[in-house]
Amino acid sequence: MTAATGSAFTDNPVLIVGSMAFDDLELPSGAEKNVVGGSATYASVAATLYTAARVVAVVGSDFPNETIDLLKIRGVDVDGIEHAAGKTFRWVGRYAQNLASRETLDTQLNVFADFRPKLPDAYRDSRFVLLGNIHPALQLEVLAQMKAPELVVADTMNFWISGERKLLLDVLAKVDALVINDEELRQLSEDHNLKRGAQAVLKMGPKRLVVKRGDAGAMLFDDESIFFAPAYPLETEMDPTGAGDSFAGAVVGFLAREKTPGHATWRQALLAGATVASFCVEGVGTKRLFDVTHQQVADRLRDLLAILDAE
Amino acid sequence: MTAATGSAFTDNPVLIVGSMAFDDLELPSGAEKNVVGGSATYASVAATLYTAARVVAVVGSDFPNETIDLLKIRGVDVDGIEHAAGKTFRWVGRYAQNLASRETLDTQLNVFADFRPKLPDAYRDSRFVLLGNIHPALQLEVLAQMKAPELVVADTMNFWISGERKLLLDVLAKVDALVINDEELRQLSEDHNLKRGAQAVLKMGPKRLVVKRGDAGAMLFDDESIFFAPAYPLETEMDPTGAGDSFAGAVVGFLAREKTPGHATWRQALLAGATVASFCVEGVGTKRLFDVTHQQVADRLRDLLAILDAE
Repeated sequence: MTAATGSAFTDNPVLIVGSMAFDDLELPSGAEKNVVGGSATYASVAATLYTAARVVAVVGSDFPNETIDLLKIRGVDVDGIEHAAGKTFRWVGRYAQNLASRETLDTQLNVFADFRPKLPDAYRDSRFVLLGNIHPALQLEVLAQMKAPELVVADTMNFWISGERKLLLDVLAKVDALVINDEELRQLSEDHNLKRGAQAVLKMGPKRLVVKRGDAGAMLFDDESIFFAPAYPLETEMDPTGAGDSFAGAVVGFLAREKTPGHATWRQALLAGATVASFCVEGVGTKRLFDVTHQQVADRLRDLLAILDAE
Repeated sequence: MTAATGSAFTDNPVLIVGSMAFDDLELPSGAEKNVVGGSATYASVAATLYTAARVVAVVGSDFPNETIDLLKIRGVDVDGIEHAAGKTFRWVGRYAQNLASRETLDTQLNVFADFRPKLPDAYRDSRFVLLGNIHPALQLEVLAQMKAPELVVADTMNFWISGERKLLLDVLAKVDALVINDEELRQLSEDHNLKRGAQAVLKMGPKRLVVKRGDAGAMLFDDESIFFAPAYPLETEMDPTGAGDSFAGAVVGFLAREKTPGHATWRQALLAGATVASFCVEGVGTKRLFDVTHQQVADRLRDLLAILDAE
């Protein structure tokens, strides 16, 4: 088996906007410094398991060329990555011994502080878009640069929900789906009940809401139905960093490959996301995501389906 | 629709051993005093949605006759309920505003302190047994009084896992399945990883392990496979007390109705358990469980299956 490459899928590349970063991680297995991360990095590598990807992000002069090269090999168009003078965004975090929680020890925005996403002309007609967790004003700027995207999926975080609610609501009115975790859902909906909270968020604009719940799986809500995708039960959990971004990237990549996603495709996309995210957790940083083969993803997706099989 | 009765199912009654209690509850909706509860109460009412039940428990002279009558109407054989002089076991608890956690404010064992389960002769040939969460020495005494049970499912709790580990291991060597929550699994297996922990517990004796995870669903582990049953997403959550006991009671009741439970039956039993537990949470105490109709259970089970349907 050879490592997966996205080069075979170039007919519906997904546009991914987000961060590229260095992470300093305190993991139960030990400390790891200068781990290449960032939402756009994880999401784009994950997406290329299903289709090609285009990335809009910013890196500093300290960002390794070899990561850019690895992304290219995986079918990621890197023309949208801005190389700015200065240091790359850095996140410093510490995980609990059981990996169930983490705390941010430091955030150094560096070149990310002045990031204004600029889409190369060739990206403007992208049909499928993942707006990673950046300032909602920037998410709106991305949408303003696009011609006629068919499917826009957005992520966000507690910081914007509390601090930029009005702009975030503008974003939500323009996107097809929102991917957030359960705590963010509670905060955004101001309701501790997930089902009622989901109904409230769907009234804000998106036709679909995906709620990530870590090792408790992910849920898909639309007007009519709910779907549940379990997390793949892992025996070896190394590093959950980027699992949520990998999940979102794989979901959008899967949808883009299918081109006209309907009800069933969305459900399958969640299972694809859960599968790809599980590989992310098995290695430190993006290591396992870069190594995983299409065959390994397909095998694990089949195992995940068996976990749902009530017959 | 009329309320469910278990009277139609008398050919394979499940034997349920556990507590009968009064609960004083501080719920987000307000304080509730003298709510009839206890693991055997919840489990037996839940079991009668699928088959008849026999209960071995102890109540004090303050326990309401009308609850005993309601149990009889539901097809519960109450001959095994010992009526002791003194007060019924009482649990006092306070729930967090979001119902996600609770704390025990007081436990008054009362007549439960001297409880020694005695099986009426007619109970000794029960084929299906639920050993509720009582001292493992008492669980062993129940098994010693039985002729040849075909399927024994046990529950336990942190108190016995830490304080009576050796006796608990004796129980585990004799039972077919263990039903515990995720924290109890971590404690019993001494592993924070659920999958590895489950494998460790299966080596202690039970052929199947069911892990309850509250609103994150339940998982079934055996030697070969894993199954995931989601929790039914509720819009109205009143009182989670007894949800785990209702789940276990419905699982065993469902298995008893099917008589020779194999792989698929166990999976369906978890879905039945999740469905019945969801009704439990919708009312204070056993109220909703006593009211629910077979049709309502069947309808919700169908909705739950749709949540798992990846097509």
